[in-house]
Amino acid sequence: MTVRIKALVFDAYGTLYNVHSVIALCDQRFPGQGNALSQLWRQKQLEYTWLKSLMGEYEDFWVITEKALTYACRHLGLTCDEGTRARLMDAYLHLQPYPEVEEALEALQSRPLAVLSNGSPRMLLELTRNTGLEPRFKAILSVDEVKIFKPHPSVYQLAPARLGVDRHEVGFVSSNYWDAVGAKAFGFHVFWINRSNATPDEMGYTPDAVLRSLAELPQHVG
Amino acid sequence: MTVRIKALVFDAYGTLYNVHSVIALCDQRFPGQGNALSQLWRQKQLEYTWLKSLMGEYEDFWVITEKALTYACRHLGLTCDEGTRARLMDAYLHLQPYPEVEEALEALQSRPLAVLSNGSPRMLLELTRNTGLEPRFKAILSVDEVKIFKPHPSVYQLAPARLGVDRHEVGFVSSNYWDAVGAKAFGFHVFWINRSNATPDEMGYTPDAVLRSLAELPQHVG
Repeated sequence: MTVRIKALVFDAYGTLYNVHSVIALCDQRFPGQGNALSQLWRQKQLEYTWLKSLMGEYEDFWVITEKALTYACRHLGLTCDEGTRARLMDAYLHLQPYPEVEEALEALQSRPLAVLSNGSPRMLLELTRNTGLEPRFKAILSVDEVKIFKPHPSVYQLAPARLGVDRHEVGFVSSNYWDAVGAKAFGFHVFWINRSNATPDEMGYTPDAVLRSLAELPQHVG
Repeated sequence: MTVRIKALVFDAYGTLYNVHSVIALCDQRFPGQGNALSQLWRQKQLEYTWLKSLMGEYEDFWVITEKALTYACRHLGLTCDEGTRARLMDAYLHLQPYPEVEEALEALQSRPLAVLSNGSPRMLLELTRNTGLEPRFKAILSVDEVKIFKPHPSVYQLAPARLGVDRHEVGFVSSNYWDAVGAKAFGFHVFWINRSNATPDEMGYTPDAVLRSLAELPQHVG
């Protein structure tokens, strides 16, 4: 299926970047606990963005991420000294892109590409620079502009506003099903990247296409 | 510590009622999977309330609960026929109160008591009637009035508005830490009931008191 898409907008964490690439470092610091720590860290990070937003409050994603790490360590009974905390947080600025990402972005350069993420501007800038992906993007958009997290519609509105296209002309790419749902509800054309055979949530919306990786994206957007 | 509290407002699911009292029924229908199903069902139920609310959408808690059950069964590879689904959903109208609840509510009758819950009006009415607790409450307040879920402040506002007291005079009682946080941010005096030695979340607020069960509440409110 070829659709009329004038710009492609990518979620960052979990979509371009593997948030669980911190497992190795977690495991080095807390042997045998790396996976549990990484999973709980991520789960709490997301919960805190949703809850804070619903409460009408905002703290940037760096602060949220650090608080989620504090919770996860405490819950798992892991003593996280300042040095360990600093190294784990720093790992968020050096997450690994999924293996197909660079080549897929290269193949998609004929239209504007952007990032739209919960990350703070500094986190996104450092991460895309550290991984060499920054030059691929026309815009790197952070929820920090609107001080509320995904899936609030004002976040998705940042992309058409900045890229000068209609929302229906935006191809939005996310591996996070709840993000794909929020984007679909907003009116984007949504590609859900399901690398891990995840179970779709029951939220009343379905993505326009389900892909196994970003490598399939070029053939879908023409 | 005795504080000046003019009304007590209770969360329902997880606080007065054990949502995991469905485990036995789940286990009967899906042997060996009862706990996993109940945990995932509850987790997704909450996630859907947060996400829908952030998206600016609303479906009542019965619909949300059924969708969460559908997800949980599918994710766990359990075939949930119509009869099983109906029985599991019906169980939500017959959840067990925690063992100390009836006696604690009896001891607290000198001031107005209310329920403030994500549940739909029908769910809350049937549940409190089926368990004999309805007469204990002056008001049973549902988020359905404001069409958004906890921890949005407009939910908590229902209680002082209906009970005719100032928000600072409300003692709010919840076992759900995120709910306790939302209530504290709103301005209630908050009692967190921590029956299971849970880890407090890192959300910038702490409850005014932490109790092991509702049995400790009478001595705290005088």
